[in-house]
Amino acid sequence: MQLSDIRIVLVETSHPGNIGATARAMKNMGLEQLYLVRPAQFPHADATARASGADELLGRAVVCDSLEQALTGCSTVFGASARSRTIPWPEVTPRQCGEQMASADGQAALVFGRERSGLTNEELERCNYLVHIPTNPEFSSLNVAAAVQVLSYEARVAVLGHQARDAVEKDRPATADEVDGFYQHLEQTLIDTEFLDPGNPRQLMRRLRRLFNRVQLESVEVNILRGILTAAQKKAGTR
Amino acid sequence: MQLSDIRIVLVETSHPGNIGATARAMKNMGLEQLYLVRPAQFPHADATARASGADELLGRAVVCDSLEQALTGCSTVFGASARSRTIPWPEVTPRQCGEQMASADGQAALVFGRERSGLTNEELERCNYLVHIPTNPEFSSLNVAAAVQVLSYEARVAVLGHQARDAVEKDRPATADEVDGFYQHLEQTLIDTEFLDPGNPRQLMRRLRRLFNRVQLESVEVNILRGILTAAQKKAGTR
Repeated sequence: MQLSDIRIVLVETSHPGNIGATARAMKNMGLEQLYLVRPAQFPHADATARASGADELLGRAVVCDSLEQALTGCSTVFGASARSRTIPWPEVTPRQCGEQMASADGQAALVFGRERSGLTNEELERCNYLVHIPTNPEFSSLNVAAAVQVLSYEARVAVLGHQARDAVEKDRPATADEVDGFYQHLEQTLIDTEFLDPGNPRQLMRRLRRLFNRVQLESVEVNILRGILTAAQKKAGTR
Repeated sequence: MQLSDIRIVLVETSHPGNIGATARAMKNMGLEQLYLVRPAQFPHADATARASGADELLGRAVVCDSLEQALTGCSTVFGASARSRTIPWPEVTPRQCGEQMASADGQAALVFGRERSGLTNEELERCNYLVHIPTNPEFSSLNVAAAVQVLSYEARVAVLGHQARDAVEKDRPATADEVDGFYQHLEQTLIDTEFLDPGNPRQLMRRLRRLFNRVQLESVEVNILRGILTAAQKKAGTR
Protein backbone atom coordinates (compact mmCIF):
# COMPACT_ATOMS: atom_id res chain seq x y z
CA MET A 1 0.00 0.00 0.00
CA GLN A 2 1.14 3.56 -0.71
CA LEU A 3 0.60 6.49 1.65
CA SER A 4 -1.75 7.93 -0.96
CA ASP A 5 -4.01 4.87 -0.48
CA ILE A 6 -4.65 5.74 3.17
CA ARG A 7 -7.59 7.95 3.99
CA ILE A 8 -8.13 9.84 7.22
CA VAL A 9 -11.79 10.04 8.25
CA LEU A 10 -12.85 12.54 10.92
CA VAL A 11 -16.34 12.01 12.33
CA GLU A 12 -18.37 15.01 13.56
CA THR A 13 -15.38 17.19 14.41
CA SER A 14 -16.49 20.21 16.47
CA HIS A 15 -13.49 22.51 16.12
CA PRO A 16 -12.42 23.49 12.60
CA GLY A 17 -8.92 24.19 13.95
CA ASN A 18 -8.55 20.47 14.54
CA ILE A 19 -9.43 19.79 10.90
CA GLY A 20 -6.70 22.20 9.81
CA ALA A 21 -4.12 20.69 12.18
CA THR A 22 -5.10 17.24 10.88
CA ALA A 23 -4.48 18.35 7.29
CA ARG A 24 -1.05 19.67 8.25
CA ALA A 25 -0.12 16.46 10.11
CA MET A 26 -1.27 14.40 7.12
CA LYS A 27 0.66 16.40 4.55
CA ASN A 28 3.79 16.32 6.75
CA MET A 29 3.58 12.52 6.69
CA GLY A 30 2.70 12.30 2.97
CA LEU A 31 -0.98 11.37 3.34
CA GLU A 32 -3.42 12.97 0.93
CA GLN A 33 -7.01 11.82 1.41
CA LEU A 34 -9.12 13.62 4.01
CA TYR A 35 -12.77 12.68 4.55
CA LEU A 36 -15.02 14.66 6.89
CA VAL A 37 -18.27 13.15 8.16
CA ARG A 38 -20.72 15.89 9.21
CA PRO A 39 -18.13 18.45 10.41
CA ALA A 40 -19.67 21.15 12.63
CA GLN A 41 -18.05 23.99 10.65
CA PHE A 42 -16.26 23.53 7.36
CA PRO A 43 -14.75 25.28 5.48
CA HIS A 44 -13.65 27.72 8.18
CA ALA A 45 -10.87 30.30 8.66
CA ASP A 46 -9.54 28.41 11.72
CA ALA A 47 -9.09 25.28 9.64
CA THR A 48 -7.12 27.15 6.99
CA ALA A 49 -4.98 28.93 9.60
CA ARG A 50 -3.99 25.74 11.40
CA ALA A 51 -3.40 23.87 8.10
CA SER A 52 -0.46 26.24 7.69
CA GLY A 53 0.22 25.52 4.02
CA ALA A 54 -1.66 22.23 3.75
CA ASP A 55 -4.76 24.08 2.54
CA GLU A 56 -4.80 22.37 -0.86
CA LEU A 57 -5.45 19.17 1.07
CA LEU A 58 -8.37 20.90 2.83
CA GLY A 59 -9.61 22.07 -0.55
CA ARG A 60 -9.76 18.47 -1.76
CA ALA A 61 -11.38 17.15 1.46
CA VAL A 62 -14.53 15.08 0.85
CA VAL A 63 -17.47 16.04 3.08
CA CYS A 64 -19.83 13.10 3.70
CA ASP A 65 -23.24 12.60 5.29
CA SER A 66 -22.39 9.23 6.78
CA LEU A 67 -19.42 7.14 7.87
CA GLU A 68 -20.56 4.47 5.44
CA GLN A 69 -20.16 6.91 2.57
CA ALA A 70 -16.67 7.93 3.77
CA LEU A 71 -15.55 4.29 3.85
CA THR A 72 -16.71 3.42 0.33
CA GLY A 73 -14.01 1.45 -1.47
CA CYS A 74 -11.89 0.77 1.65
CA SER A 75 -10.81 -2.81 2.28
CA THR A 76 -9.19 -2.22 5.68
CA VAL A 77 -10.64 0.10 8.31
CA PHE A 78 -9.03 1.01 11.64
CA GLY A 79 -11.01 2.88 14.29
CA ALA A 80 -9.07 4.99 16.81
CA SER A 81 -10.33 4.06 20.24
CA ALA A 82 -9.66 4.42 23.93
CA ARG A 83 -9.08 1.06 25.53
CA SER A 84 -11.60 -1.31 27.13
CA ARG A 85 -14.63 -0.84 24.96
CA THR A 86 -17.66 -2.90 25.71
CA ILE A 87 -17.46 -4.51 22.28
CA PRO A 88 -14.82 -7.26 21.96
CA TRP A 89 -13.05 -6.23 18.77
CA PRO A 90 -9.56 -7.05 17.54
CA GLU A 91 -7.23 -4.35 18.83
CA VAL A 92 -3.85 -3.39 17.36
CA THR A 93 -1.09 -1.01 18.43
CA PRO A 94 -0.25 2.00 16.24
CA ARG A 95 2.88 0.16 15.08
CA GLN A 96 0.92 -2.93 14.09
CA CYS A 97 -1.61 -0.67 12.35
CA GLY A 98 1.17 0.89 10.25
CA GLU A 99 2.66 -2.51 9.41
CA GLN A 100 -0.71 -3.95 8.43
CA MET A 101 -1.46 -1.04 6.15
CA ALA A 102 2.01 -1.16 4.59
CA SER A 103 1.62 -4.83 3.69
CA ALA A 104 -2.04 -4.69 2.60
CA ASP A 105 -3.47 -4.05 -0.84
CA GLY A 106 -6.27 -1.68 -1.77
CA GLN A 107 -7.42 1.33 0.23
CA ALA A 108 -7.33 1.73 4.01
CA ALA A 109 -9.07 4.15 6.35
CA LEU A 110 -8.17 5.46 9.78
CA VAL A 111 -11.31 6.72 11.52
CA PHE A 112 -11.23 9.30 14.33
CA GLY A 113 -14.21 10.28 16.47
CA ARG A 114 -15.60 13.36 18.15
CA GLU A 115 -13.36 15.52 20.37
CA ARG A 116 -15.36 14.74 23.52
CA SER A 117 -16.85 11.31 22.99
CA GLY A 118 -14.83 9.54 20.28
CA LEU A 119 -16.58 6.97 18.10
CA THR A 120 -19.85 5.25 19.01
CA ASN A 121 -19.97 1.47 19.35
CA GLU A 122 -21.98 1.33 16.14
CA GLU A 123 -19.24 3.24 14.32
CA LEU A 124 -16.50 1.05 15.84
CA GLU A 125 -18.34 -2.02 14.60
CA ARG A 126 -17.85 -0.77 11.06
CA CYS A 127 -14.08 -1.05 11.60
CA ASN A 128 -12.00 -4.19 11.03
CA TYR A 129 -9.68 -3.28 13.89
CA LEU A 130 -9.52 -0.88 16.78
CA VAL A 131 -6.23 0.95 17.18
CA HIS A 132 -5.29 2.23 20.61
CA ILE A 133 -2.54 4.80 21.14
CA PRO A 134 -0.88 3.99 24.47
CA THR A 135 -1.50 7.02 26.68
CA ASN A 136 -1.05 7.99 30.30
CA PRO A 137 -4.06 6.36 31.99
CA GLU A 138 -4.53 9.45 34.13
CA PHE A 139 -4.68 11.80 31.13
CA SER A 140 -5.65 9.72 28.19
CA SER A 141 -7.61 12.01 25.89
CA LEU A 142 -5.42 12.90 22.92
CA ASN A 143 -6.22 15.87 20.74
CA VAL A 144 -7.65 14.46 17.49
CA ALA A 145 -4.92 16.01 15.31
CA ALA A 146 -2.26 14.62 17.69
CA ALA A 147 -3.79 11.16 17.30
CA VAL A 148 -3.78 11.61 13.50
CA GLN A 149 -0.12 12.68 13.79
CA VAL A 150 0.92 9.52 15.66
CA LEU A 151 -0.93 7.08 13.39
CA SER A 152 0.18 8.88 10.21
CA TYR A 153 3.76 8.82 11.48
CA GLU A 154 3.60 5.06 12.08
CA ALA A 155 2.04 4.59 8.63
CA ARG A 156 4.86 6.59 7.04
CA VAL A 157 7.62 4.72 8.88
CA ALA A 158 6.08 1.36 7.93
CA VAL A 159 5.44 2.22 4.28
CA LEU A 160 8.92 3.71 3.79
CA GLY A 161 10.41 0.68 5.56
CA HIS A 162 8.58 -1.70 3.23
CA GLN A 163 9.64 0.28 0.17
CA ALA A 164 13.27 0.22 1.32
CA ARG A 165 13.14 -3.52 1.92
CA ASP A 166 11.46 -4.11 -1.43
CA ALA A 167 14.20 -2.12 -3.14
CA VAL A 168 17.04 -4.06 -1.48
CA GLU A 169 15.64 -7.56 -1.70
CA LYS A 170 12.64 -9.22 -3.19
CA ASP A 171 12.17 -11.75 -0.42
CA ARG A 172 8.70 -12.43 0.84
CA PRO A 173 7.95 -13.09 4.51
CA ALA A 174 7.73 -16.76 5.44
CA THR A 175 4.23 -18.19 5.77
CA ALA A 176 3.01 -19.64 9.07
CA ASP A 177 3.36 -23.13 7.54
CA GLU A 178 6.97 -22.53 6.60
CA VAL A 179 7.84 -21.20 10.05
CA ASP A 180 6.09 -24.15 11.67
CA GLY A 181 8.05 -26.57 9.47
CA PHE A 182 11.24 -24.85 10.57
CA TYR A 183 10.39 -25.24 14.27
CA GLN A 184 9.67 -28.95 13.82
CA HIS A 185 12.91 -29.44 11.90
CA LEU A 186 14.82 -27.46 14.55
CA GLU A 187 13.39 -29.55 17.40
CA GLN A 188 14.21 -32.82 15.63
CA THR A 189 17.77 -31.65 14.91
CA LEU A 190 18.27 -30.67 18.55
CA ILE A 191 17.17 -34.17 19.54
CA ASP A 192 19.45 -35.73 16.88
CA THR A 193 22.46 -33.76 18.12
CA GLU A 194 21.55 -34.60 21.72
CA PHE A 195 21.21 -30.97 22.72
CA LEU A 196 17.55 -31.50 23.59
CA ASP A 197 16.45 -34.42 25.74
CA PRO A 198 12.87 -35.23 24.68
CA GLY A 199 12.30 -36.73 28.14
CA ASN A 200 13.22 -33.41 29.76
CA PRO A 201 12.65 -30.63 27.21
CA ARG A 202 12.45 -27.82 29.79
CA GLN A 203 11.69 -24.43 28.22
CA LEU A 204 14.10 -24.74 25.33
CA MET A 205 11.72 -24.71 22.36
CA ARG A 206 9.63 -21.97 23.94
CA ARG A 207 12.73 -19.80 24.25
CA LEU A 208 13.81 -20.50 20.68
CA ARG A 209 10.34 -19.70 19.38
CA ARG A 210 10.41 -16.42 21.25
CA LEU A 211 13.76 -15.62 19.61
CA PHE A 212 12.78 -16.50 16.03
CA ASN A 213 9.30 -14.99 16.32
CA ARG A 214 10.94 -11.62 16.99
CA VAL A 215 12.86 -11.77 13.72
CA GLN A 216 9.93 -12.19 11.28
CA LEU A 217 11.71 -14.71 9.10
CA GLU A 218 11.70 -14.45 5.34
CA SER A 219 10.98 -17.47 3.19
CA VAL A 220 14.57 -17.58 1.87
CA GLU A 221 15.89 -17.43 5.43
CA VAL A 222 13.77 -20.42 6.45
CA ASN A 223 15.33 -22.35 3.55
CA ILE A 224 18.85 -21.39 4.63
CA LEU A 225 18.19 -22.32 8.28
CA ARG A 226 16.69 -25.67 7.27
CA GLY A 227 19.71 -26.31 5.04
CA ILE A 228 21.95 -25.75 8.07
CA LEU A 229 19.82 -28.16 10.13
CA THR A 230 19.97 -30.84 7.42
CA ALA A 231 23.78 -30.53 7.26
CA ALA A 232 23.99 -31.00 11.04
CA GLN A 233 21.65 -34.02 10.86
CA LYS A 234 23.81 -35.63 8.16
CA LYS A 235 26.89 -35.24 10.34
CA ALA A 236 24.93 -36.71 13.26
CA GLY A 237 24.12 -39.70 11.05
CA THR A 238 20.39 -39.28 11.48
CA ARG A 239 19.70 -38.20 7.92
CA MET B 1 15.23 5.62 32.38
CA GLN B 2 11.70 6.54 33.42
CA LEU B 3 9.42 8.89 31.46
CA SER B 4 9.73 11.33 34.37
CA ASP B 5 13.49 11.56 33.67
CA ILE B 6 12.91 13.00 30.20
CA ARG B 7 12.69 16.73 29.83
CA ILE B 8 11.21 18.61 26.90
CA VAL B 9 13.02 21.87 26.12
CA LEU B 10 11.38 24.44 23.84
CA VAL B 11 13.70 27.20 22.60
CA GLU B 12 12.28 30.68 21.87
CA THR B 13 8.76 29.51 21.08
CA SER B 14 6.76 32.34 19.46
CA HIS B 15 3.20 31.09 19.90
CA PRO B 16 2.00 30.33 23.44
CA GLY B 17 -0.63 27.99 21.95
CA ASN B 18 2.21 25.71 20.91
CA ILE B 19 3.49 25.63 24.49
CA GLY B 20 0.04 24.57 25.69
CA ALA B 21 -0.31 21.89 22.99
CA THR B 22 3.17 20.63 23.94
CA ALA B 23 2.13 20.31 27.59
CA ARG B 24 -0.94 18.33 26.58
CA ALA B 25 1.07 16.01 24.31
CA MET B 26 3.61 15.46 27.09
CA LYS B 27 1.03 14.67 29.75
CA ASN B 28 -0.79 12.31 27.38
CA MET B 29 2.45 10.38 26.99
CA GLY B 30 3.36 10.53 30.70
CA LEU B 31 6.17 13.11 30.46
CA GLU B 32 6.37 15.73 33.19
CA GLN B 33 9.31 18.10 32.82
CA LEU B 34 8.84 21.15 30.57
CA TYR B 35 11.63 23.71 30.17
CA LEU B 36 11.12 26.93 28.22
CA VAL B 37 14.10 28.92 26.97
CA ARG B 38 13.16 32.58 26.42
CA PRO B 39 9.51 32.01 25.37
CA ALA B 40 8.00 35.04 23.58
CA GLN B 41 4.87 35.02 25.78
CA PHE B 42 4.45 32.90 28.87
CA PRO B 43 2.26 32.41 30.85
CA HIS B 44 -0.54 33.17 28.38
CA ALA B 45 -4.23 32.34 28.04
CA ASP B 46 -3.62 30.57 24.69
CA ALA B 47 -1.15 28.21 26.36
CA THR B 48 -3.65 27.33 29.09
CA ALA B 49 -6.47 26.84 26.57
CA ARG B 50 -4.49 24.46 24.35
CA ALA B 51 -3.09 22.57 27.36
CA SER B 52 -6.66 21.40 27.85
CA GLY B 53 -6.23 20.02 31.36
CA ALA B 54 -2.46 19.71 31.37
CA ASP B 55 -2.14 23.15 32.99
CA GLU B 56 -0.50 21.83 36.15
CA LEU B 57 2.37 20.82 33.90
CA LEU B 58 2.48 24.40 32.55
CA GLY B 59 2.42 25.68 36.13
CA ARG B 60 5.55 23.68 36.90
CA ALA B 61 7.35 24.67 33.66
CA VAL B 62 10.86 26.04 34.22
CA VAL B 63 11.59 29.26 32.31
CA CYS B 64 15.29 29.67 31.49
CA ASP B 65 17.51 32.40 30.08
CA SER B 66 19.73 30.01 28.16
CA LEU B 67 19.72 26.53 26.64
CA GLU B 68 22.72 25.71 28.80
CA GLN B 69 20.66 26.38 31.91
CA ALA B 70 17.79 24.21 30.63
CA LEU B 71 20.17 21.30 30.05
CA THR B 72 21.76 21.35 33.51
CA GLY B 73 21.98 17.81 34.88
CA CYS B 74 21.16 16.07 31.58
CA SER B 75 23.47 13.28 30.47
CA THR B 76 21.87 12.66 27.07
CA VAL B 77 20.61 15.44 24.81
CA PHE B 78 18.74 15.02 21.52
CA GLY B 79 18.14 17.99 19.23
CA ALA B 80 15.15 17.85 16.88
CA SER B 81 16.39 18.78 13.45
CA ALA B 82 15.47 18.86 9.80
CA ARG B 83 17.84 16.72 7.77
CA SER B 84 21.08 17.71 6.08
CA ARG B 85 22.54 20.24 8.46
CA THR B 86 25.88 21.71 7.67
CA ILE B 87 27.33 20.22 10.86
CA PRO B 88 28.15 16.50 10.69
CA TRP B 89 26.51 15.20 13.87
CA PRO B 90 25.32 11.71 14.77
CA GLU B 91 21.70 11.41 13.66
CA VAL B 92 19.10 8.99 14.99
CA THR B 93 15.52 8.16 14.05
CA PRO B 94 12.70 8.86 16.52
CA ARG B 95 12.53 5.12 17.26
CA GLN B 96 16.26 4.93 17.99
CA CYS B 97 15.92 8.05 20.15
CA GLY B 98 13.20 6.35 22.24
CA GLU B 99 15.22 3.16 22.59
CA GLN B 100 18.37 5.03 23.58
CA MET B 101 16.52 6.98 26.26
CA ALA B 102 14.77 3.86 27.56
CA SER B 103 18.07 2.05 28.04
CA ALA B 104 20.08 5.03 29.37
CA ASP B 105 20.58 6.15 32.95
CA GLY B 106 20.24 9.68 34.31
CA GLN B 107 18.28 12.52 32.77
CA ALA B 108 17.67 13.11 29.07
CA ALA B 109 16.49 16.16 27.14
CA LEU B 110 14.68 16.55 23.84
CA VAL B 111 15.30 20.03 22.45
CA PHE B 112 12.95 21.72 19.97
CA GLY B 113 13.67 24.97 18.15
CA ARG B 114 11.80 28.01 16.94
CA GLU B 115 8.64 27.63 14.85
CA ARG B 116 10.20 29.21 11.76
CA SER B 117 13.90 28.49 11.98
CA GLY B 118 14.41 25.53 14.34
CA LEU B 119 17.65 25.30 16.29
CA THR B 120 20.83 27.17 15.39
CA ASN B 121 24.01 25.22 14.62
CA GLU B 122 25.45 26.43 17.91
CA GLU B 123 22.44 24.99 19.77
CA LEU B 124 22.63 21.71 17.84
CA GLU B 125 26.28 21.39 18.82
CA ARG B 126 25.20 21.26 22.45
CA CYS B 127 23.27 18.04 21.64
CA ASN B 128 24.74 14.53 21.69
CA TYR B 129 22.50 13.46 18.82
CA LEU B 130 20.24 14.99 16.24
CA VAL B 131 16.87 13.33 15.84
CA HIS B 132 15.05 13.66 12.53
CA ILE B 133 11.36 12.88 12.14
CA PRO B 134 10.88 11.46 8.63
CA THR B 135 8.60 13.91 6.84
CA ASN B 136 7.30 14.50 3.35
CA PRO B 137 10.24 16.28 1.67
CA GLU B 138 7.81 18.61 -0.07
CA PHE B 139 6.15 19.68 3.19
CA SER B 140 8.60 18.99 5.93
CA SER B 141 7.95 21.60 8.60
CA LEU B 142 6.17 19.94 11.50
CA ASN B 143 4.32 21.98 14.09
CA VAL B 144 6.49 21.99 17.21
CA ALA B 145 3.81 20.34 19.39
CA ALA B 146 3.32 17.67 16.71
CA ALA B 147 7.06 16.97 16.78
CA VAL B 148 6.92 16.74 20.59
CA GLN B 149 3.96 14.35 20.22
CA VAL B 150 5.86 11.98 17.92
CA LEU B 151 9.07 11.88 19.98
CA SER B 152 7.16 11.58 23.29
CA TYR B 153 5.12 8.75 21.79
CA GLU B 154 8.29 6.88 20.76
CA ALA B 155 9.75 7.49 24.22
CA ARG B 156 6.63 6.08 25.86
CA VAL B 157 6.50 2.99 23.64
CA ALA B 158 10.20 2.30 24.28
CA VAL B 159 10.07 2.87 28.03
CA LEU B 160 6.92 0.75 28.48
CA GLY B 161 8.47 -1.94 26.27
CA HIS B 162 11.59 -2.02 28.41
CA GLN B 163 9.55 -2.18 31.61
CA ALA B 164 7.47 -5.05 30.22
CA ARG B 165 10.60 -6.95 29.18
CA ASP B 166 12.22 -6.31 32.54
CA ALA B 167 9.12 -7.65 34.27
CA VAL B 168 8.94 -10.86 32.21
CA GLU B 169 12.60 -11.73 32.13
CA LYS B 170 15.75 -10.35 33.59
CA ASP B 171 17.84 -10.98 30.52
CA ARG B 172 20.23 -8.33 29.39
CA PRO B 173 20.95 -7.67 25.72
CA ALA B 174 24.04 -9.41 24.39
CA THR B 175 27.15 -7.25 24.11
CA ALA B 176 28.83 -6.68 20.75
CA ASP B 177 31.63 -9.05 21.85
CA GLU B 178 29.17 -11.83 22.65
CA VAL B 179 27.39 -11.43 19.33
CA ASP B 180 30.70 -11.42 17.50
CA GLY B 181 31.74 -14.62 19.29
CA PHE B 182 28.47 -16.20 18.20
CA TYR B 183 29.05 -15.29 14.53
CA GLN B 184 32.56 -16.78 14.60
CA HIS B 185 31.26 -19.94 16.27
CA LEU B 186 28.41 -20.15 13.76
CA GLU B 187 30.75 -19.79 10.79
CA GLN B 188 33.12 -22.49 12.13
CA THR B 189 30.21 -24.86 12.75
CA LEU B 190 28.89 -24.33 9.22
CA ILE B 191 32.35 -25.24 7.92
CA ASP B 192 32.52 -28.27 10.25
CA THR B 193 29.14 -29.53 9.06
CA GLU B 194 30.15 -28.85 5.44
CA PHE B 195 27.27 -26.46 4.87
CA LEU B 196 29.69 -23.62 4.18
CA ASP B 197 32.59 -24.08 1.78
CA PRO B 198 35.31 -21.67 2.96
CA GLY B 199 36.67 -21.64 -0.60
CA ASN B 200 33.32 -20.41 -1.91
CA PRO B 201 31.48 -18.70 0.97
CA ARG B 202 29.11 -16.72 -1.26
CA GLN B 203 26.82 -14.39 0.72
CA LEU B 204 25.91 -16.88 3.42
CA MET B 205 27.39 -15.22 6.50
CA ARG B 206 26.21 -11.81 5.37
CA ARG B 207 22.65 -13.15 5.11
CA LEU B 208 22.83 -14.82 8.51
CA ARG B 209 24.18 -11.66 10.10
CA ARG B 210 21.32 -9.70 8.61
CA LEU B 211 18.88 -12.20 10.12
CA PHE B 212 20.34 -12.26 13.63
CA ASN B 213 21.03 -8.52 13.73
CA ARG B 214 17.28 -7.95 13.32
CA VAL B 215 16.51 -9.91 16.48
CA GLN B 216 18.68 -8.04 19.02
CA LEU B 217 19.90 -11.15 20.77
CA GLU B 218 19.93 -11.42 24.53
CA SER B 219 22.94 -12.74 26.37
CA VAL B 220 21.11 -15.92 27.45
CA GLU B 221 20.04 -16.53 23.85
CA VAL B 222 23.63 -16.30 22.63
CA ASN B 223 24.52 -18.97 25.19
CA ILE B 224 21.70 -21.24 24.03
CA LEU B 225 22.63 -20.80 20.35
CA ARG B 226 26.29 -21.51 21.07
CA GLY B 227 25.27 -24.62 23.02
CA ILE B 228 23.39 -25.83 19.94
CA LEU B 229 26.44 -25.16 17.76
CA THR B 230 28.74 -27.05 20.14
CA ALA B 231 26.38 -30.06 20.12
CA ALA B 232 26.42 -30.08 16.31
CA GLN B 233 30.23 -29.82 16.27
CA LYS B 234 30.53 -32.77 18.67
CA LYS B 235 28.37 -34.88 16.36
CA ALA B 236 30.50 -33.76 13.41
CA GLY B 237 33.55 -34.95 15.31
CA THR B 238 35.26 -31.59 15.15
CA ARG B 239 34.96 -30.81 18.84
